Amino acid sequence: MLQKATDIFNVKYPIIQAPMAGGVTTTRLVTEVANGGGLGMIGAGYMSPNQLRKQIQEVQQLTPNPFGVNLFVPNEFHVTEEEILAANEKLNQFRLTLQIPEKKIVEKPDFNDLYNTFLEQVDVVIKENVPICSFTFGVPTTEVIDRLKQHDILLMGTATTVKEAIALEKAGMDIIVVQGSEAGGHRGNFLKSNNESMMGIMSLIPQVVDNVSIPVIAAGGIMDGRGFMASLCLGAQGVQMGTAFLTCLESGANELHKTAILNAKEDQTVVTRSFSGKWARGIQNEFISSMRANEQQLPAFPVQNSLTKDIRKAGASQGKPEFMSLWAGQNATMAKKQTVGMLMESIIAEAKGLGFST
Amino acid sequence: MLQKATDIFNVKYPIIQAPMAGGVTTTRLVTEVANGGGLGMIGAGYMSPNQLRKQIQEVQQLTPNPFGVNLFVPNEFHVTEEEILAANEKLNQFRLTLQIPEKKIVEKPDFNDLYNTFLEQVDVVIKENVPICSFTFGVPTTEVIDRLKQHDILLMGTATTVKEAIALEKAGMDIIVVQGSEAGGHRGNFLKSNNESMMGIMSLIPQVVDNVSIPVIAAGGIMDGRGFMASLCLGAQGVQMGTAFLTCLESGANELHKTAILNAKEDQTVVTRSFSGKWARGIQNEFISSMRANEQQLPAFPVQNSLTKDIRKAGASQGKPEFMSLWAGQNATMAKKQTVGMLMESIIAEAKGLGFST
Repeated sequence: MLQKATDIFNVKYPIIQAPMAGGVTTTRLVTEVANGGGLGMIGAGYMSPNQLRKQIQEVQQLTPNPFGVNLFVPNEFHVTEEEILAANEKLNQFRLTLQIPEKKIVEKPDFNDLYNTFLEQVDVVIKENVPICSFTFGVPTTEVIDRLKQHDILLMGTATTVKEAIALEKAGMDIIVVQGSEAGGHRGNFLKSNNESMMGIMSLIPQVVDNVSIPVIAAGGIMDGRGFMASLCLGAQGVQMGTAFLTCLESGANELHKTAILNAKEDQTVVTRSFSGKWARGIQNEFISSMRANEQQLPAFPVQNSLTKDIRKAGASQGKPEFMSLWAGQNATMAKKQTVGMLMESIIAEAKGLGFST
Repeated sequence: MLQKATDIFNVKYPIIQAPMAGGVTTTRLVTEVANGGGLGMIGAGYMSPNQLRKQIQEVQQLTPNPFGVNLFVPNEFHVTEEEILAANEKLNQFRLTLQIPEKKIVEKPDFNDLYNTFLEQVDVVIKENVPICSFTFGVPTTEVIDRLKQHDILLMGTATTVKEAIALEKAGMDIIVVQGSEAGGHRGNFLKSNNESMMGIMSLIPQVVDNVSIPVIAAGGIMDGRGFMASLCLGAQGVQMGTAFLTCLESGANELHKTAILNAKEDQTVVTRSFSGKWARGIQNEFISSMRANEQQLPAFPVQNSLTKDIRKAGASQGKPEFMSLWAGQNATMAKKQTVGMLMESIIAEAKGLGFST
């Protein structure tokens, strides 16, 4: 018999607030989720070790409940100067539109620097006694996993296929977040798959559950008590929700991003690698459409992500969402402007109506 | 309060066997589903009126229970001689491999002929007292809908977006099958959408349920009692399952097709228009891979479907599944070689374990 996710995490409800990186997971968002009985997550992917330490300490002052930190496992990348110059040439049209300086040459992020930062983030998680650490974009090394386990930190991996879920279980993860094609933001795939690794949650969860023996959390397209209960029926032990928390009042997402989601029409999201070099789902806008033809040729993550930073920033400061990454899942239309408390209560109330009991 | 799908259909369980066209839905498949308490469906898309009449009469002799017929709503198509010649040139490489005659010119199907056949199929449904008629690829005309309604035939449409579901409700459909991106076989989309109309069931069902006031049936990625119960939690009144019935002993699918599904690995399906000119999900094979680069330029359905008929047929008769359309949903890995009775019983038993009651 599988241990329950709520027992493993020591939370009341198996509802995880997705660790959205880039400033979305404010201390208030994380603590409101934790105080509401769910699992709040700090999306630390782009944070410096100092920023991370500071936020962990803030969260700990505001809640006695467990919470987690999500880290990006750095992937090696091979990007030539020519690729960067070609990408910049394409990107300069947006810089012209936004009246920001053109770029002719850009320093490439250094993999060793990124990896050292990752190791320092791991140190912070350990030193600050964070009870749960999740990973996106791959499997950490045995050394990293062993160090975290020696400190009794629960480990959670992210998979988009059965193959990835099995790899994560073998590596020693305690729990797996399984991300369906519906999910907003970056795709968590990290192993070569037979095709696009774009399986819907309805099909993916039972396939994973039948092939691993650790608890599975469903992510992608879940917005309310119906999606929560459906996930449990499929064999997941809980859910991870991004878009639904992103539009909450406590989230730190840019207001233009929240507004774009709250006004979204159905089927308005697409999967693109134009912003970061990794495939991610967001609301289609001018930037994505204009980059569409070239997106297969763009530099890999995180190089493309660095290259587009000035454009995304200018888009935000100039009030132009057409140049921002408006990450959102396939049911953005169901997002609401509400407090975390209201969202959590409505999920649980609806789930109870469908037979849920803690 | 919505009327229950089981009451509307007058069946015991809200499980619809998907109306797979092309010989899959044998009389035995349909009657076993009907006798097992589900709704069997004759996939009549490619049948002549006489073939359809004959099968309806056979089914009626073997079950007193309700069953349905599915028809393709003919869509107008605009295909030039040049497009057909270009497609044939590409297809001749496969004809060479299969040692069948090359084609240099092909007669184009005539839309008026196809439409007249459709009207004759409707007449057969009426004259043979079929209680339920479903449609794929669009909304029938008001005249057709009115005629069927005058004979108290229940009407079921197929939608892939909220917009299509609303159009079907407005046109007078009694029930809507909502097809997620996970589904095998042809995509049922018929209205221009914001993007690809490839929404996963987890995200699509709640969005549709919140926007129509007739019962919704979930289709795509559902293989067992878990998917069945998950669909009910999402707000659907029942499920339509294709792949799970296709590999049943009673199905008329080619044995090579069944074997391909039973041996499928995860994430082995892709959406292609290379076989028919309409997007459809199937197991990736040599034909699909070779046609990938050109598939946007191929003639529209049903022209491309006629063009590839000799290739698919030769693939089947020569035991070469690499040249057949191996339609399957995203969880082909969960398909089993079993009887319809075993499949139905296991779905219901698993669903009861999850709280289902009739």
